[in-house]
Amino acid sequence: MSTTEIKFGGLGGQGIILAGMIIGRAASIYDNKFATLTQSFGPEARGSACSAQVIISDKKILYPYVTKPEILLIMSQEACNRFLPDAVHDATIIIEEDLVNPKELKPDMKVYGIPATRLAEELGPKMILNIIMVGFFTAVTKIVDYESVKEAVRTSVPEGTENLNMKAFERGYHFGNGIG
Amino acid sequence: MSTTEIKFGGLGGQGIILAGMIIGRAASIYDNKFATLTQSFGPEARGSACSAQVIISDKKILYPYVTKPEILLIMSQEACNRFLPDAVHDATIIIEEDLVNPKELKPDMKVYGIPATRLAEELGPKMILNIIMVGFFTAVTKIVDYESVKEAVRTSVPEGTENLNMKAFERGYHFGNGIG
Repeated sequence: MSTTEIKFGGLGGQGIILAGMIIGRAASIYDNKFATLTQSFGPEARGSACSAQVIISDKKILYPYVTKPEILLIMSQEACNRFLPDAVHDATIIIEEDLVNPKELKPDMKVYGIPATRLAEELGPKMILNIIMVGFFTAVTKIVDYESVKEAVRTSVPEGTENLNMKAFERGYHFGNGIG
Repeated sequence: MSTTEIKFGGLGGQGIILAGMIIGRAASIYDNKFATLTQSFGPEARGSACSAQVIISDKKILYPYVTKPEILLIMSQEACNRFLPDAVHDATIIIEEDLVNPKELKPDMKVYGIPATRLAEELGPKMILNIIMVGFFTAVTKIVDYESVKEAVRTSVPEGTENLNMKAFERGYHFGNGIG
């Protein structure tokens, strides 16, 4: 059985939860896998920090909390500081490189950075930042199929924004393939 | 300790997940409670069914799966058929009454119906259906504070749609107060 634990972290408004949902849905759309997304709201949810835990598995998931993330997708420094210590020693760390500077990395961790904010500004509105990150994540991790994620993006973004978000996805994906 | 298990079910595109998130966030914004939202994507996620599990508690939540929902918010017949049998014997069942006809109710269950689709059409675009349901839920269940939910709606809906969604929330809330 193969199970992958992923943590998504950033600031409210960056679309980090939608990014997690798209990856979770993509895993089930064509890949015939199971996925869960769990979001915890504690009293700290009053601040602007925002995170989601996604598990992808070949089997039904009995315990949906991520305890040792193998992949982190991080869009704020605060999320990085908070979640990096829990990640496995050889975790894949995916960051928006202009917003996040990972400190105290373990030696086997692999860090992949993308200037997604700048790329978003080139394409149009900044709200597509999360979808650029999803494209980059898809290229770097290869844990969900390219076509599945594309379909999950298309069916998850607000009506009327599909074309723009497809471009954002492709931009992040190609950036990730160039360096991955 | 007080813990409430809630299940949200409907069709993709109805905004059922956002409804669950708003309730979860509201519980933490002012009420100082903990909440989790869990969404499972199995191979069945390829269909149009959509559901979320929300737990609200005074304490940190150790197991975020809903096993015996005490409240159901249901926006499709399929979700009703699927989730009703698992609900506790005296569950509160909140339905969009033109879309859902609950069958095989247990004798102690309380059903609250609202014609949210028609009310949404009176106010404007149909996409506010879920927020009308959130307002109705707030009035009927009283498990989250009115002001907390209002604030959670305001900060969770797409920018530029706040006023319309506030009206939708109020419409559902007042409808619920009239009959609750």
